[in-house]
Amino acid sequence: MSDIKKVVLAYSGGLDTSVILKWLQDTYQTEVVTFTADIGQGEELEPARAKAIKMGIKPENIYIDDLREEFVRDFVFPMFRANTVYEGEYLLGTSIARPLIAKRQIEIANATGAEAVSHGATGKGNDQVRFELGYYALKPGVKVIAPWREWDLLSREKLLSYAEKAGIPIEMKHKAGGAPYSMDANLLHISFEGRHLEDPKAEAEESMWRWTVSPEAAPDQAQYLDLEFEQGDLVAIDGIRMKPHELLARLNELGGKHGIGRLDLVENRYVGMKSRGCYETPGGTILLRAHRGIESITLDREVAHLKDNLMPRYAEIIYNGYWWSPERRAIQALIDQTQQRVNGWVRVKLYKGGVTVVARDSKDSLFDQTIATFDDDGGAYNQKDAEGFIKLNALRMRIAASKRG
Amino acid sequence: MSDIKKVVLAYSGGLDTSVILKWLQDTYQTEVVTFTADIGQGEELEPARAKAIKMGIKPENIYIDDLREEFVRDFVFPMFRANTVYEGEYLLGTSIARPLIAKRQIEIANATGAEAVSHGATGKGNDQVRFELGYYALKPGVKVIAPWREWDLLSREKLLSYAEKAGIPIEMKHKAGGAPYSMDANLLHISFEGRHLEDPKAEAEESMWRWTVSPEAAPDQAQYLDLEFEQGDLVAIDGIRMKPHELLARLNELGGKHGIGRLDLVENRYVGMKSRGCYETPGGTILLRAHRGIESITLDREVAHLKDNLMPRYAEIIYNGYWWSPERRAIQALIDQTQQRVNGWVRVKLYKGGVTVVARDSKDSLFDQTIATFDDDGGAYNQKDAEGFIKLNALRMRIAASKRG
Amino acid sequence: MSDIKKVVLAYSGGLDTSVILKWLQDTYQTEVVTFTADIGQGEELEPARAKAIKMGIKPENIYIDDLREEFVRDFVFPMFRANTVYEGEYLLGTSIARPLIAKRQIEIANATGAEAVSHGATGKGNDQVRFELGYYALKPGVKVIAPWREWDLLSREKLLSYAEKAGIPIEMKHKAGGAPYSMDANLLHISFEGRHLEDPKAEAEESMWRWTVSPEAAPDQAQYLDLEFEQGDLVAIDGIRMKPHELLARLNELGGKHGIGRLDLVENRYVGMKSRGCYETPGGTILLRAHRGIESITLDREVAHLKDNLMPRYAEIIYNGYWWSPERRAIQALIDQTQQRVNGWVRVKLYKGGVTVVARDSKDSLFDQTIATFDDDGGAYNQKDAEGFIKLNALRMRIAASKRG
Amino acid sequence: MSDIKKVVLAYSGGLDTSVILKWLQDTYQTEVVTFTADIGQGEELEPARAKAIKMGIKPENIYIDDLREEFVRDFVFPMFRANTVYEGEYLLGTSIARPLIAKRQIEIANATGAEAVSHGATGKGNDQVRFELGYYALKPGVKVIAPWREWDLLSREKLLSYAEKAGIPIEMKHKAGGAPYSMDANLLHISFEGRHLEDPKAEAEESMWRWTVSPEAAPDQAQYLDLEFEQGDLVAIDGIRMKPHELLARLNELGGKHGIGRLDLVENRYVGMKSRGCYETPGGTILLRAHRGIESITLDREVAHLKDNLMPRYAEIIYNGYWWSPERRAIQALIDQTQQRVNGWVRVKLYKGGVTVVARDSKDSLFDQTIATFDDDGGAYNQKDAEGFIKLNALRMRIAASKRG
Repeated sequence: MSDIKKVVLAYSGGLDTSVILKWLQDTYQTEVVTFTADIGQGEELEPARAKAIKMGIKPENIYIDDLREEFVRDFVFPMFRANTVYEGEYLLGTSIARPLIAKRQIEIANATGAEAVSHGATGKGNDQVRFELGYYALKPGVKVIAPWREWDLLSREKLLSYAEKAGIPIEMKHKAGGAPYSMDANLLHISFEGRHLEDPKAEAEESMWRWTVSPEAAPDQAQYLDLEFEQGDLVAIDGIRMKPHELLARLNELGGKHGIGRLDLVENRYVGMKSRGCYETPGGTILLRAHRGIESITLDREVAHLKDNLMPRYAEIIYNGYWWSPERRAIQALIDQTQQRVNGWVRVKLYKGGVTVVARDSKDSLFDQTIATFDDDGGAYNQKDAEGFIKLNALRMRIAASKRG
Repeated sequence: MSDIKKVVLAYSGGLDTSVILKWLQDTYQTEVVTFTADIGQGEELEPARAKAIKMGIKPENIYIDDLREEFVRDFVFPMFRANTVYEGEYLLGTSIARPLIAKRQIEIANATGAEAVSHGATGKGNDQVRFELGYYALKPGVKVIAPWREWDLLSREKLLSYAEKAGIPIEMKHKAGGAPYSMDANLLHISFEGRHLEDPKAEAEESMWRWTVSPEAAPDQAQYLDLEFEQGDLVAIDGIRMKPHELLARLNELGGKHGIGRLDLVENRYVGMKSRGCYETPGGTILLRAHRGIESITLDREVAHLKDNLMPRYAEIIYNGYWWSPERRAIQALIDQTQQRVNGWVRVKLYKGGVTVVARDSKDSLFDQTIATFDDDGGAYNQKDAEGFIKLNALRMRIAASKRG
Repeated sequence: MSDIKKVVLAYSGGLDTSVILKWLQDTYQTEVVTFTADIGQGEELEPARAKAIKMGIKPENIYIDDLREEFVRDFVFPMFRANTVYEGEYLLGTSIARPLIAKRQIEIANATGAEAVSHGATGKGNDQVRFELGYYALKPGVKVIAPWREWDLLSREKLLSYAEKAGIPIEMKHKAGGAPYSMDANLLHISFEGRHLEDPKAEAEESMWRWTVSPEAAPDQAQYLDLEFEQGDLVAIDGIRMKPHELLARLNELGGKHGIGRLDLVENRYVGMKSRGCYETPGGTILLRAHRGIESITLDREVAHLKDNLMPRYAEIIYNGYWWSPERRAIQALIDQTQQRVNGWVRVKLYKGGVTVVARDSKDSLFDQTIATFDDDGGAYNQKDAEGFIKLNALRMRIAASKRG
Repeated sequence: MSDIKKVVLAYSGGLDTSVILKWLQDTYQTEVVTFTADIGQGEELEPARAKAIKMGIKPENIYIDDLREEFVRDFVFPMFRANTVYEGEYLLGTSIARPLIAKRQIEIANATGAEAVSHGATGKGNDQVRFELGYYALKPGVKVIAPWREWDLLSREKLLSYAEKAGIPIEMKHKAGGAPYSMDANLLHISFEGRHLEDPKAEAEESMWRWTVSPEAAPDQAQYLDLEFEQGDLVAIDGIRMKPHELLARLNELGGKHGIGRLDLVENRYVGMKSRGCYETPGGTILLRAHRGIESITLDREVAHLKDNLMPRYAEIIYNGYWWSPERRAIQALIDQTQQRVNGWVRVKLYKGGVTVVARDSKDSLFDQTIATFDDDGGAYNQKDAEGFIKLNALRMRIAASKRG
């Protein structure tokens, strides 16, 4: 009925994408290639293989990839070089994972000769945009199937009934009404949206949080970490060098233990509505503070301010799904150029939900103690220079005040 | 010897400005008008009057003003409407007080017929710039005397010896080597610089902090506050309306009790050097979070992003001392225009150094639950619209990928 | 058949909107209200009334409004206060007229109780976006009918055949293949797109241009004009005060005579494609230069640079159709605040396609001859101040070079 | 008397720098190294050698360098990649030459072991800043001697009298009152400031202009040029490949012949005053238009807008003298990254002072005729997509209007 012969589905193995798998087979009479990625969401992937096989997917059409290192090295770290936060608060944990999924999905489409790709994101959210902008940018002629925008299974009941008929196993929790939140997790964060959170004036329930203990439950003893950076990227924790994804996993563990990185936010979606989200980003929260700390002694003032000026735009680009756009690449060229000397270490203190920078040093430091000192500096800085500096900086205002009374 | 007949000195009553007072009398043979302001620094002002009289200042030349309400209403609150932070962290507590001091000093100069003004800021810091840009903008022909850039009392010993000869009483602490830090306080913050802090790789001593207990020493029980806003300004705490400076004082008290608002930073001074500063801004830290919280439901997305884009520039303007500039006024016009509907309340949780927004509501809320819901929305939002939205947003990238392969 | 009882159509009286009128009647079985505006396009409007009546529109449903003054006063002039150009070149002549049409159309919908509005813009262009964003911003529940996106009359032949059947008179030019360009005109400009212009490597034909003579055909004698501004707006030409639209009409006449304001551009549409457009904006081209001229002596440097920084965003907002958005209003508040002292006169020279500022003066001028002079300034400016100014501005670079070799 | 043993002077061979040369010898008792550069100012350099020798400079201390190619390749062209204009009009002809002079002067200081450098710029202008920021950035410990800020020869009479006593030959024009303007020339432009131009309300005299004929005197016949670009840089004119400086020289010749590139401006100097300058930039004016022309078909929309957003800041950086700063290098990294596909040709028409782009093409063009066409596009673009695009872009405004009435 359809002219689509093969479609690559971003397949988690969960109920929703299993229904989608079946629906694609039914509706498009198409061969389905499943793609399941480990980006640190903390779930077993092999069950996805078994389920796929059970639904008739050929073994050669089942892709299960460990993308954790690539995710942190090529997506998370470049983003943190810019101290990126969306709307002053959000660390973009979901946004930054989508471009990688999209890229890999297109690679698989190319490898398997599929004309189409499909995902399980709804028609109201940002993720559909992030996936599809990636698809189109990397394979402009690709056919995109977004079942949530096409089918009539919009209520939970219809979905479960479809699954039942299709013989898709339904876990107990789904029968009991489904998860109280829509969740998404990867090495950078876990997010919660919808259902119980839809009223912004109601506090989130303590039981919702997964990765972090509550600050109240965190250890009574603070913990100090020394974080080492090279060219703007974290390379070691307390002297132990690890791979990017190992470092972030370690920070997540430590941050989670100390109740760090919870966020409850009303944000503005790209599709035009406000939405309330809760996020746990323990490692990222530590990393952001520490990165600013190392930049504070190694970056020139005007370069730092230039980055601060561009950051909101850069965050918007990523949030809206334009990772694969030429404008993101252009800004990244600027950001990466600034990080060449962002080397050194930062000491942070973790305690009861808080992370504080308490010390920092670098062989590339621009902090000049002989000039900064309040004591006699032996002439390193001539205080008289300040008079001319101020007078000329004031000149335009003096002229204006003189001429206009 | 000099042609200056009268000078208005920003006079704290402390050792340094007392020496300056005497030095002005000696060096310029000039009449000195002293100006001492209460901006919430938490010190008695009447001793300044007694000292001034003792140094020969005529009673009519002694100005002691309570500027606390004006300070918070006309300077701190307008700045917080922009969610202003300098270099990602600093809440500009010192920067925002200087323009008010400068303005009042010029008013007194005009009232007393003084041709000159003088301050006790050094030639290395930002404060000299902030004072003097204010002076020049408001009274372009004014003569500025900056003793630290002129005299030869650059070492502590010389200063003390000058004071001794002049009969200026020297407190014990000065004889014992002086304060370990250079401090500045007002209703927004207390700051620490210099001496023991000059090594950025050494953690600040716990004994330094004055306004906040350490998070470890804070209560084991979290405290919730309801903060109410009108047109972007805080107007009530837990239902009790107060004046601006009373509100900020109350937040300082509560924040200080919970260990909130400590910051240890290496920042970039306008005069070109990096400098390490420690700050306690308990009330401001709560206010910033809460203001972002109320904006999150009442501001349009693009307006919020526009503000975020302008904020670093606005922060730079204030940090560098350009409060009285036309560019600050222009940006303020934009910011104030955006705050008309920033009304409502925000609930924050204070605990062990952390402040978290947990709930918010407003009669002017733009959060639309019927559209945001994950459940069936009865057609309020047509998911099919998303396809066209994505396709046209992707078009330029699809064309590029098609044409360039 | 449809639940739309009344629709307000932006009706020019031309072939396309006449077909749309009929198609609306046929397809929606709805009462049509026609709205025809004079925004300076230079066409008789009364024929539109006759045509409407002939097509069965009730007299009370025919709106013909002269919006020329409002157009220039409330749309064109505010935009020119920002020195607005899109992509470095385009003066936004079409973009700035759409918001006014949309506003008036909604006013008529409210007055007549219509639930729907309709326009004749195609599905590929910017104008549909500009119209509809205006409609939705001003009347969120309005139903929008965009025939070009709905019907099947996409080819010229089908359209003519529909017109013929409907008894709509077809002028000779349409039978002969239609206009070689898609044109749009108002007091600010006339634009040409499509057909003969679709190949960007082919020069536009001389016969296309309507409002301007070719530079070659312009007078051999230059003409000088004195333009007077108040608060950033043009108020008089050569000493003669006129209303905004009269001033712009006069500038168009003079500019057209001297071959001024032709532009041939490939621009980026909001819907994602590149498009080639040719524009004649004689008056606007003169106005832009003159406004920059008067600002050059009356605006503070940093205010001018702030405006230059915001301008591209402001232009994008208008080009994309967001005139009625809150972000446009916020920026406008800033821009208007800066224009209070933009008073004075500018002399421009018009010659063979060029407009040049040759002189300017203002009682609010910030140009200070005593300071600017190359001759002895009697101490108004102390050249020695420059040393400190430079040294401190260089300090961060000196420290960097010292520490990093 | 001084501890300076050797100083490198930027020496033009003219009266002013000859007096400076002598004054340095007299005042500092120092050995002087003269540096004279050909950056296309159009003057013989060998006379400078003779004069230097006559004033006792050792032959090995005389540096005369042809920097024309480096100037255009490494300074002018990189700047034009950003479509750089200062305050909407000025093409930065003087600003862009100073960094090269400063760099070469420091190289010579390093080669000859000089501790100091000196220049002939006054204490009121931008050039002192541009020179000295370059010196300090490239050799932080260098001693800078700026005679105009130090000596007492501020009036023309004193200068001439000093020259006379020193036996420096004085040309007739100086005796007759000196040049009516302060001029500066290089391959990009010639500038005029001061004296007869100090009244912004008086038109510049026709006799002032040097490089361009008046539009009135230009040929009555338009001339067309085909300009070819590679990676954003001009590489050929009418099919003839030349070196960068040859290309610019050729454009100057053609532009000058057609009266192109005159500008009369009141600009804001970095030192705080407004100043009136007149400029002739014939080749640069053509180049700017053509570069925008080639970008219009080869640059992505968002990349182009990003560049437009950064341009004013980039222009400010160059105007203020921060070419050698890290922030300029960071922005340059972004700009250069965007130029990889800026290849193709642009046809411009030169006529009577005007330059117009009339055609353009590129193998890397992003203009897609099948999509842009007004005629039937065979489904390349689905007009129905526009509805969803508009609806979601309007959503935030629809919600606001609904909720706030």
